[in-house]
Amino acid sequence: MTSIGPHVLGIAGMSREQIEFILATAQQFREVNTRSVKKVPSLRGKTVINLFLEPSTRTRTSFEIAAKRMSADAINISAGTSSVTKGETLIDTALTLQAMAPDVVVLRHSESGASHLLAEVLTKCAIINAGDGLHEHPSQALLDALTIQNRLGRLSDITLTMVGDVLRSRVARSNILLHRILGNKVRIVAPPTLARKEFEKMGVEVFSRMEDAVVGSDVIMSLRMKFEYLKDIFVPNLDEYSRLYCVGEKHLKLAKPDCLLMAPGPFVRGVEVDSRVVDGPQSLVSDQVENGVAVRMALLFLLTTGKGVSQPDIAEAGGI
Amino acid sequence: MTSIGPHVLGIAGMSREQIEFILATAQQFREVNTRSVKKVPSLRGKTVINLFLEPSTRTRTSFEIAAKRMSADAINISAGTSSVTKGETLIDTALTLQAMAPDVVVLRHSESGASHLLAEVLTKCAIINAGDGLHEHPSQALLDALTIQNRLGRLSDITLTMVGDVLRSRVARSNILLHRILGNKVRIVAPPTLARKEFEKMGVEVFSRMEDAVVGSDVIMSLRMKFEYLKDIFVPNLDEYSRLYCVGEKHLKLAKPDCLLMAPGPFVRGVEVDSRVVDGPQSLVSDQVENGVAVRMALLFLLTTGKGVSQPDIAEAGGI
Amino acid sequence: MTSIGPHVLGIAGMSREQIEFILATAQQFREVNTRSVKKVPSLRGKTVINLFLEPSTRTRTSFEIAAKRMSADAINISAGTSSVTKGETLIDTALTLQAMAPDVVVLRHSESGASHLLAEVLTKCAIINAGDGLHEHPSQALLDALTIQNRLGRLSDITLTMVGDVLRSRVARSNILLHRILGNKVRIVAPPTLARKEFEKMGVEVFSRMEDAVVGSDVIMSLRMKFEYLKDIFVPNLDEYSRLYCVGEKHLKLAKPDCLLMAPGPFVRGVEVDSRVVDGPQSLVSDQVENGVAVRMALLFLLTTGKGVSQPDIAEAGGI
Repeated sequence: MTSIGPHVLGIAGMSREQIEFILATAQQFREVNTRSVKKVPSLRGKTVINLFLEPSTRTRTSFEIAAKRMSADAINISAGTSSVTKGETLIDTALTLQAMAPDVVVLRHSESGASHLLAEVLTKCAIINAGDGLHEHPSQALLDALTIQNRLGRLSDITLTMVGDVLRSRVARSNILLHRILGNKVRIVAPPTLARKEFEKMGVEVFSRMEDAVVGSDVIMSLRMKFEYLKDIFVPNLDEYSRLYCVGEKHLKLAKPDCLLMAPGPFVRGVEVDSRVVDGPQSLVSDQVENGVAVRMALLFLLTTGKGVSQPDIAEAGGI
Repeated sequence: MTSIGPHVLGIAGMSREQIEFILATAQQFREVNTRSVKKVPSLRGKTVINLFLEPSTRTRTSFEIAAKRMSADAINISAGTSSVTKGETLIDTALTLQAMAPDVVVLRHSESGASHLLAEVLTKCAIINAGDGLHEHPSQALLDALTIQNRLGRLSDITLTMVGDVLRSRVARSNILLHRILGNKVRIVAPPTLARKEFEKMGVEVFSRMEDAVVGSDVIMSLRMKFEYLKDIFVPNLDEYSRLYCVGEKHLKLAKPDCLLMAPGPFVRGVEVDSRVVDGPQSLVSDQVENGVAVRMALLFLLTTGKGVSQPDIAEAGGI
Repeated sequence: MTSIGPHVLGIAGMSREQIEFILATAQQFREVNTRSVKKVPSLRGKTVINLFLEPSTRTRTSFEIAAKRMSADAINISAGTSSVTKGETLIDTALTLQAMAPDVVVLRHSESGASHLLAEVLTKCAIINAGDGLHEHPSQALLDALTIQNRLGRLSDITLTMVGDVLRSRVARSNILLHRILGNKVRIVAPPTLARKEFEKMGVEVFSRMEDAVVGSDVIMSLRMKFEYLKDIFVPNLDEYSRLYCVGEKHLKLAKPDCLLMAPGPFVRGVEVDSRVVDGPQSLVSDQVENGVAVRMALLFLLTTGKGVSQPDIAEAGGI
């Protein structure tokens, strides 16, 4: 029987079976979000703490909605309003929270490895990595996969091309890992300062010219160019970057017919991706967000109430 | 049959029937807030997102309490802890949120017209304008009207005098619109830099001397003097402003017997309104806040579960 | 019959019977937090407002979890995202909130006496002081007492030694008051600038040398050294402070066998308390946090639904 847990720290270490199991579970939860009464009792009496020590709107909101629609008690802690800055270590903050008997701690943190660190000390609750530094953001890669699967009808035999600051993107890293596990082709394209040759060790094809990279792509994914990185040594000039790497209609035309456009967001129109492409029929931007809630419901379910269920039992286990 | 929606963006465009219908609905919800168990199932399984991109305590809390007492899942997003500043446009933020299947987005925004902008792109959820720049704050005008109605026993044949920075008050604007629709007399009084002659086009009588304006008033409403506006070109001197326009007992005496004192708050005692007046028997300050929760319950109900119900059906529709 | 309320502003004024009654109630709620479904209907339809005008993670989270596990609607207001700074007085903010019909307002405020001030004006809801300036933090002292009782099997005949900035610690103050009511011995130890002779008026023994203070102690409690106070006139040098007053293994050895180590947190390892001591078998740090949720559940229950119940009736009153 496939099982998930005790934590979800990254795509690294997951098997193909686990990924497919999570996606199949999420598929079932998708329907809940289309109901008139979007509420299931799956996590009644469970406590989910969203410990977001980096600013976030979409990921925190997505986890919070997922938890609440499953009837969990959701608690938000953000860096801004908390005493996290009183000199306490992350481990002591986490041990304190654990003593309040949460079932899941969802952690967003600026340091790579933060959720792994917690997993070493927290023995009584599950941890979900909601983005740690430049490392991983597994729920994002899973929702991207669910989105691709639902549109293309398959998760194998895919060529995924990621554009932009792959060097400092945890989303890119989790997507590379996931699609390599599934045996898909992954390409990255960016200025050579960002799309480095080292990525080839991860089984990735590295490009510097968009025109070369997009040919034959089933999916083009535009990565966020973080403002805080602009004018650093890797991206000296934003105008030049956009001229070369902003995903536009001409790139979609060079790719496979009906090539999908994805962007984990937030994105800036005209910088990472052209407005007509975002709003066009090949864009899956809204689908990604929609599937994000379902994937997070699945993760919360599988780490708590649904621990150990095999897929057909989800409804029986009170899931939906 | 009277109906409301799909959005509540302002008083502008509302009919007398719609205003009365909202107030009649709110009247029924008032009772819920006096119960020992303040909880009704009206919005079970609905998701309400409070997107407050300007700081707010009372309005956000009022909407949040309204949503929770109706069993909705309420999600707060504030500028401080969110990634709204990552360069994403308001429209893209809203489209992202819409993909998470909320039923209502309550928007507070510093730009006039922000909620109208959202209404053009969001097709799957209702929007409530909780204050947009200098434009409108419709739920405030509605709660003010409910408060007047409950104390005076009528909503017509009323003279309402608003004191202060009407030029930059969305509360004033929504109140002017509402009472003009109802056929009431509206007066404004402030230094001529604020209470401009242009307001006469809205059917308002413009005064610069308190003594002239308050005579014959049924209601005096003191508007907030925003600190950020002090010492600007319109209000050079706070002491002088307060000496001339701080609502005091002498003004109530000049008005009709039992003239009501209202203030949308927050207010500074001794600046916009005298402490004895705020705490006196003619003050409706607490009633306004109390009715605010009921009005917001009514709006949330009428835009979701109660869509299309006529008033006597509210209980049947699971409202209360 | 023992009763609590209408407010919980401090340990001052409580009787031994009241303290024991709260702890006995909390004892029963402890079990709820160990269940698979951590949810009881005790506060269904009640509204709890967490008005935290000073940053806090653990206390706010603890109250929020307590409220939600009892099915209350919990509303958070923090200084950061609110309009509290718009010039409104604390009293007017509180009167506004009261008009929204909360059952309990939990107040954290930087000014000593803030919750007493509110208690003078709020007549329709209960107030819990969650820390006011340098004054009191009663729920912390109660959870500390529950922790001691559960480990030592008694709450009398105890010697409690508090280390550190007792002068500016509301936790220390509440603990001194509580243990003096129970007739226990309380010692304080710190540099003479902090552990002043005036404390002897509270029935406390004052020490300046750790080696003298800890001998015969049943409990050593390490107080937080607030960073904002460092290098002030009382604590000129952190290194010297830590060398003299950081609680270490040698101090536990000088105390009674199995002397307990407590720290209200957050603490900085190596400054107020040694890491080996925090993680050692005599440390009750996690127990304190765990009991915090139970104590806050008890307070919320006794001030609302459970008002007037005597202890054996709690289950009957729908408490658990």
